Amino acid sequence: MTSAEKARTPGLFVTFEGIDGSGKSTQARLLADHLTAQGHDVVLTREPGGSPGAEEIRALVLQGDPDRWSAQTEILLFTAARRDHLERTIRPALDAGKVVICDRFADSTRMYQGLSRGDLRQMVDDLHALMIGVEPDLTLLIDMDPAHGLERALSRQTAEERFEDFGVELQAKMRAGFLSLAEEFSDRFHVIDGGRDIDSVAQEVTACVTARLG
Amino acid sequence: MTSAEKARTPGLFVTFEGIDGSGKSTQARLLADHLTAQGHDVVLTREPGGSPGAEEIRALVLQGDPDRWSAQTEILLFTAARRDHLERTIRPALDAGKVVICDRFADSTRMYQGLSRGDLRQMVDDLHALMIGVEPDLTLLIDMDPAHGLERALSRQTAEERFEDFGVELQAKMRAGFLSLAEEFSDRFHVIDGGRDIDSVAQEVTACVTARLG
Repeated sequence: MTSAEKARTPGLFVTFEGIDGSGKSTQARLLADHLTAQGHDVVLTREPGGSPGAEEIRALVLQGDPDRWSAQTEILLFTAARRDHLERTIRPALDAGKVVICDRFADSTRMYQGLSRGDLRQMVDDLHALMIGVEPDLTLLIDMDPAHGLERALSRQTAEERFEDFGVELQAKMRAGFLSLAEEFSDRFHVIDGGRDIDSVAQEVTACVTARLG
Repeated sequence: MTSAEKARTPGLFVTFEGIDGSGKSTQARLLADHLTAQGHDVVLTREPGGSPGAEEIRALVLQGDPDRWSAQTEILLFTAARRDHLERTIRPALDAGKVVICDRFADSTRMYQGLSRGDLRQMVDDLHALMIGVEPDLTLLIDMDPAHGLERALSRQTAEERFEDFGVELQAKMRAGFLSLAEEFSDRFHVIDGGRDIDSVAQEVTACVTARLG
């Protein structure tokens, strides 16, 4: 999908980003429930994964020894998963005029693969430009104190969530990275303070998206 | 590995290419046996696959419905497999001064993903330049009459070999594509007539590689 094609799609593509434990998955679900109740046609999805093929690639990447793939191979696998997710789930829904709400998208790859395992941001960006090309209409960054986020993430940790094994230093680096990304892409990012109670955060999320829906 | 780094590796990287049924896998094995008997340290490998991770990606791509992945996603998955194969198998062997003999490499992606499912050659090349960057020192193209190759390929067909389902027109297109690739990369390609008996072909293969080994 080129930018020109993207501009013609009638739907709205909203992504949630943030460090682990920021509450973004909860907020994505609450937003989907709210918009559905308002009569909107909503697709709630997530990355890595979001289509049958992409979920298989997710399992291949996240299961097993954390060192089984190099950072570069991991970037390629996540991009393959994203391409499948885009073709099979996101693009058809946007073309049908739906609101697509996605828990993590390319910005997470820019952070977790582009920053945490070496300085691979340029490679991530080049690969995105070559094979994906699409950016969200609106990205909601749920900003959160790194120590608080880590505590919440660890309390619900599953075997798959090995990205959360790196401790509070990585969480702090990722938070700073996301805030910097929000400045870099200020036209589509909206930073929301995730340190408040769930309802207050949800209200700001809803207000943001409702404004974009017109 | 950049080209500068590549130039410093003491080993020799030999690939076999050709249409299905050309006999290249047999020739790769015979060459490996011959060089081993001559006292060379040889690694015989193949693509897609060639390392534990890459073999898992191979299974993900080749099993199931042929339409389960788009051509673009398939290119990404093969490139992920190649990156792993390069990091874990090919590069360490070349760095140790070994002869690496690989049954198919990037030229097969240039043909099968770049040509057979639409005109994606530029995408394949851009992705290769970004994420792989390495070319073989010597590529032996085992050239074969398409009808003869198809007959041989079908006689030993396994469930995985779905690339051979496309018939003699595709075989002819791929043969022409490989010959054109041999002209494009004439510095490293050597075209060998695969229509002769196995021993005659093996003699020419051996002479070619022995000349490069000095």
